[in-house]
Amino acid sequence: MISAPILLTPGPLTTSARTKEAMLQDWGSWDKAFNQLTASVCRDIVRIVNGEGSHVCVPLQGSGTFSVEAALGTLVPRGGKVLVPNNGAYCQRIARILGYLGREAVLLDHREDEPISTERVDTALRADPAITHVALVHCETGTGVLNPLQEVADVVARHSRRLIVDAMSSFGALPIDLKTTPIDALVAASGKCLEGVPGMGFVIARQDRLEAAKGNCHSLALDLHDQWAYMQKTGQWRFTPPTHVVAALRAAMDQFQAEGGVDARGARYRQNCQALVDGLRALGLRTFLSDAHQAPIIVTFHAPKHPNYQFDRLYQGVREKGFILYPGKLTEVETFRVGCIGAIATPEINLAVQAIADTMQELRLPVQANPS
Amino acid sequence: MISAPILLTPGPLTTSARTKEAMLQDWGSWDKAFNQLTASVCRDIVRIVNGEGSHVCVPLQGSGTFSVEAALGTLVPRGGKVLVPNNGAYCQRIARILGYLGREAVLLDHREDEPISTERVDTALRADPAITHVALVHCETGTGVLNPLQEVADVVARHSRRLIVDAMSSFGALPIDLKTTPIDALVAASGKCLEGVPGMGFVIARQDRLEAAKGNCHSLALDLHDQWAYMQKTGQWRFTPPTHVVAALRAAMDQFQAEGGVDARGARYRQNCQALVDGLRALGLRTFLSDAHQAPIIVTFHAPKHPNYQFDRLYQGVREKGFILYPGKLTEVETFRVGCIGAIATPEINLAVQAIADTMQELRLPVQANPS
Repeated sequence: MISAPILLTPGPLTTSARTKEAMLQDWGSWDKAFNQLTASVCRDIVRIVNGEGSHVCVPLQGSGTFSVEAALGTLVPRGGKVLVPNNGAYCQRIARILGYLGREAVLLDHREDEPISTERVDTALRADPAITHVALVHCETGTGVLNPLQEVADVVARHSRRLIVDAMSSFGALPIDLKTTPIDALVAASGKCLEGVPGMGFVIARQDRLEAAKGNCHSLALDLHDQWAYMQKTGQWRFTPPTHVVAALRAAMDQFQAEGGVDARGARYRQNCQALVDGLRALGLRTFLSDAHQAPIIVTFHAPKHPNYQFDRLYQGVREKGFILYPGKLTEVETFRVGCIGAIATPEINLAVQAIADTMQELRLPVQANPS
Repeated sequence: MISAPILLTPGPLTTSARTKEAMLQDWGSWDKAFNQLTASVCRDIVRIVNGEGSHVCVPLQGSGTFSVEAALGTLVPRGGKVLVPNNGAYCQRIARILGYLGREAVLLDHREDEPISTERVDTALRADPAITHVALVHCETGTGVLNPLQEVADVVARHSRRLIVDAMSSFGALPIDLKTTPIDALVAASGKCLEGVPGMGFVIARQDRLEAAKGNCHSLALDLHDQWAYMQKTGQWRFTPPTHVVAALRAAMDQFQAEGGVDARGARYRQNCQALVDGLRALGLRTFLSDAHQAPIIVTFHAPKHPNYQFDRLYQGVREKGFILYPGKLTEVETFRVGCIGAIATPEINLAVQAIADTMQELRLPVQANPS
């Protein structure tokens, strides 16, 4: 093993040695052994969200955003109109994708430090019967805010509209049950809470909706229906799969299952999050979100209000101590972000807090208990 | 190292242990060390085809086909019309992509066992001034036929049209010189003759053409202009990069350079190809292409005309002996394919020939010298 920093970033993240070692083998993409690998990964992904019998998993090459675009492009017909409740960067990315696709989008803007309002979604759907779909980000990684998936899904279903969910940074860590939560498509990726390496996404789609989506897509590469139909017929990916990434994901999912699935993983991340928030608050740093709205995935902190503060200097000091932070993604407030996910637990978080404390002292930033 | 079969497939292919071991580290996608990795890979890719000063390398997540679609979608404007000289499956895939994009395509059909005719391209361009672009496949992996890149490029330039080249299975093994061959965009991928692992493609595009292509693309994920502009500004990929695949490609390119670049790699593949063709001809098998048209990348063989022959049985027998073959891709003739590329040399090819011979005997297929 090469020694490397611990990633406190929300994907790519720190993966286990076992996950990485699964990449020490080449696979023939046409070979039965690889087809079985793909099939087992897809089967287990569907099981994580209780989607057997209703939903299918379609894996796709590329980053998670490729799968978000594929889901929108395949499942929203050309005349569709999509409501995008917006409280952050990844909601805005969905709107940007819809612009490329020529699908009408209605942004329902919220503050970035508050969850999506189910009432406002209800009102918007009531007001505009032309809206066919709602695209919701479950955990908005731009800030770390958790949106009320179950409540929004119930409202969307009550209005007989279709729901597409970007569950990129929640899938595998926060419970989602497709038997009780009406969702047409749930999108996530290999290198997030399943703790694989980045390089593929996947869409868990209602089979009947996917079957009805033939011919919708704007792109051959991103055509989920075509990818799924070919895979049904042959067991293979249409185009060269990222074989090593798939093998790493299988190994990562074996570890996920051994750890105890969503409950255990979510519990570990909540402990990480708590240790992080407690530790940095003790240094006088303030979280951007109130605790009630915080998902245990990534935490946004206000930058210290001090002339000695520059993110690059904090980053570099912490980096030299073995940890990689993440910049803020807000335009109006200066912040930085720290991820809670990956093959790490509270000991690593505590060391990271210490590295931040030491760096703040090196930069002569005030380190003090915060009374609030 | 886990023992695994040798892949005689044209990507994924067998990679070296050193290339795979480069994946035993996690990388922060925002970190300077990773930005430098990306920049060095892009710089060296441009150098391989002598494109410094005129062309830039834009890496893209996904398989090679994602990059082909990205090049077409970004560089062919909405009113463009594309001539697709067609002698195989990958030419037809380009036409299919253009259909998705709503760009007009003109197929110039050829026999699958013959190279593209420069004269016919010339005639087609002369006859239709509305054609703005030509999309050529350099080595058509469907059969293994080598198309006359230099001659076609000269004709296209003479008619002042633009050329986009799918060099997926030739890049790194066959010489291409952008100083003397007028090409707007050259597309290839990590897991082919550079001998990396699959998971990313790249487009080497003329910078002026790329700059002029803003707003063309049908897809956010596949928008090469946007990917390039963001990378210019930040040094980073727009969306989560396949970090381990990039690290493996860097290691693979170090080995490529140490081996002696395109000349040495091409020479090794030619030796592999010769050993393969000689060996299988000695068993009585016939190549689909004449030697003059054969690229040293992948060889298509006619299936033995015998009732005992089934590709699956040949495949399985050879697989059990440690080698993975590739099925044919022709609809009218029964064939199978054997790749010559990857981190293998004539000893491995000779063992593969022996495995094929042994399997043919097990299946009671006639094994005999072929007089032709």
